[in-house]
Order: sequence, then structure tokens, then C-alpha cells
Amino acid sequence: MAITLYELAGADPALVFSPYCWRTRLALAHKGLDVETVPWCFTETDKLAFSGQGKVPVIVDGAKATHDSWAIAEYLDAAYPDRPSLLGGQAGAAHARFINAWTDGVVLPGIARLVVRDILDVLRPQDQPYFRTSRERAFGMTLEQVQEGREARVVEWRRALAPARTVLKAQPWLGGAVPDYADYILAGSLMWPRCVSRFQLLEDDDAMALWFARVRGLFGGMAEAARTA
Amino acid sequence: MAITLYELAGADPALVFSPYCWRTRLALAHKGLDVETVPWCFTETDKLAFSGQGKVPVIVDGAKATHDSWAIAEYLDAAYPDRPSLLGGQAGAAHARFINAWTDGVVLPGIARLVVRDILDVLRPQDQPYFRTSRERAFGMTLEQVQEGREARVVEWRRALAPARTVLKAQPWLGGAVPDYADYILAGSLMWPRCVSRFQLLEDDDAMALWFARVRGLFGGMAEAARTA
Repeated sequence: MAITLYELAGADPALVFSPYCWRTRLALAHKGLDVETVPWCFTETDKLAFSGQGKVPVIVDGAKATHDSWAIAEYLDAAYPDRPSLLGGQAGAAHARFINAWTDGVVLPGIARLVVRDILDVLRPQDQPYFRTSRERAFGMTLEQVQEGREARVVEWRRALAPARTVLKAQPWLGGAVPDYADYILAGSLMWPRCVSRFQLLEDDDAMALWFARVRGLFGGMAEAARTA
Repeated sequence: MAITLYELAGADPALVFSPYCWRTRLALAHKGLDVETVPWCFTETDKLAFSGQGKVPVIVDGAKATHDSWAIAEYLDAAYPDRPSLLGGQAGAAHARFINAWTDGVVLPGIARLVVRDILDVLRPQDQPYFRTSRERAFGMTLEQVQEGREARVVEWRRALAPARTVLKAQPWLGGAVPDYADYILAGSLMWPRCVSRFQLLEDDDAMALWFARVRGLFGGMAEAARTA
């Protein structure tokens, strides 16, 4: 039986853009598991009530629901140990948790400040007031103000990716010789701006851009084929 | 036969302070290997000529010399696979490389700007001109100017440790349930300011400070007992 994946969608149900949902999408593909996706929009709280909380991604595997992208990666490795490992065992998982924390704490907040206004345009009209209000409260300014001056600020964001760039000089994937969840953490996060905005985050000749293209090409080009804004 | 470790020392040969040498010191202790240390000072180029380059740490194991702290960790896991793993296998090593790159690229440059002037005082008089000249050229200002205003700047440096702090909320060590090379990368780096300066980098109640104290307590309190400035 296929695993059900609830994932954040825009007005177009095929436009999936959450960085956390993309991590899970890529993780499920890495495991080679059958997936049925259920698009979920910001204000559809009832649809997730069964999971006991209100955020995606959520997966349902048989009778078991799991939420939180990191917990899902751990669940998949534990439940399907004979399929390719996502986290690389105990030490691999412990070290990958750092990459997860760095991506969540450094990379994602930077992306938000570059494209958060653009997100509004891909949402259903009925989700837009919730999105604007909640995010403007968090930022303490309008979405337009948050995004202002991004052409200059993107340079600093690119610089903050230096640790990943250093790693990719020494090995082809963050996972080493083969891609693993470390790659999906960061590449999944980069799918977010790619799917909601035409603003160029990575320069074409950046090693990060070349690696990101390679991740998008995995699993039959699953991420490459995803709808972009 | 013991492994010989060449490590950076100050005027007092017992004052070992290089962040990279501390990583190797802790790695050798983790492996439970016998070590004979050879103090090396900045301008003693002849003493390292055998290794084909001019930087410590260098280890000599039988006939084999290895330099660069990361390469030494890889060597120790490959040469002593039956002893506790440092890097945690292929995925563990691939992910740890990110922690290494982040520490080298984010944590260490920040530390340098907080204590570089203090280093001068622990060096032999004959090494001080080399140190001052080479570092002032790199920074484009005097060591005193680099260190200026550190009381205010340390706050930002502490904030940059957020990813490690997040990880340590979820697990006791960067290595997971047990310490491993991921811990030695970062803790070894924190031994550097600890050994050369009385300037307080971490606040006492910071989870990072508590974890750092736990690392110093490993291996019979090896790092705790190290001479501090």
C-alpha cells in the first residue's frame, strides 16, 4: 500500500513548495517507496486534525501517521532498513542533524527574506490573508518591506552557503559518494524559492547551483519537472 | 609503538593551543592510542620538513606521516577500524565534513577576531614577529585593532553557534548518544581561545558551555587539565 504524503500546495494543487515537504518528497523517492500525495493549503486545519497537529509534511504509512520532516526521515530508515539509507546510521544521523539545524537556522531565514512576498502570489486567495497577517506579525513589517533590497542582500546569503560549498569541493554530494538525506535537506530547501519565485538565488556558475541541478535530476528528474512560478 | 604527534606550542612547550592540534589530540585519545607529543613553534620550519609541508598537526605512525587534522581523522579510522569510530563510517564522515567546514569557515574566523592579539603573549619572543606580521597582513590592520570592541562583537559570535545549540537540545553530543569526531572538531576549536586568553567566549549558562565542559572532562579530563593562559 502506498504511503500518503500531505504536502503544502498553492492555488495550483500541483505547485508544492514547502522546503520541509520537498525534503520528505526526495526522501521517499530515495527509499523507492510508492507515494500518494494529498495537497494541503495553509488554512485547511481540519484536513490534518487526525495527525494531532497542524503542519505538513505528514505521512501516513498503514495505520501510522508521522509528522515533521526530520522525524519522517528517521521513521523511514527505521521502518525500511533494507532500502537505501537516508541518514547513514547512528553517527550519520547525528551529524546530519547539524546540517538540518544549520539549514533551518541559517539558510531558510535568509531565503524567506528574499522571496516571502512572492509566495503570496502562488497561494489560493482564501489563504493569502492568513499568510500575510501571520508573516507580517513575525517579521514586524510588511512582506513588501521584508523583500526590499534583495538584489543586494542575496550576495550575503550566497556567502553564508560557504560551508556547503567547501564540502562539495571535496565530495560530489553532501552525503559523500552518493546523495542522501543531507542533500535533500538543503536541496529541498532550495526548491522553496525555485517554486515560488523567479528571483535568482544562486549564480549560474556557483558549485552550489551545479550540485542543486544534479539533485533535481535524481529520481527521473522529479524535482526538475516540478512546476516553478 | 606510540604515534608521534607534532603540535603547535607556545613559549611554554606544554601550552598547546592550535584548534586543529586539539582535534587530533582528542581523536587520538578517542582511539585509545599511545601518543608521544613533540611541541613545534611557528618558525621551526626544519622540524617539519620531513612531512613535506609546514603545518601542524602532523602524526607519524610507524613509517607513515600524515598531516591535516581531517586527513588524520580519516587515517585513524582506516588504520584502526576495531577501535571506536571517529567519523561514523562513510555517511558519518561525509556529514561530519560539513561540521568541519562550518567550524573552519564560521566559528574559527570569529574566534580569531576575538583573541588574536592575546595569542601573541603566549608565543616565544622569536616567534612573535612572524605571527604579528603574517596575521596583520592577513587582516589588513594591527592585531590590537582586530581585537578591539570584542565585548560587543562576542554576542554575534555566540549567536552564530545556534546550529550546534539546536543539535545539543536533541542529543547529548554532536556525535549523537556518544561523543565522536564531530564533538572534537568544535570543542578542539574552543580549546584555542581557552588556552590563549582569559576573555570569556561562552556564557556560563549556555548549553554550549555545558557541552564544552563535558568534552573537556573526557579521557580523564585531558582537555580540562590543559594549561590555560
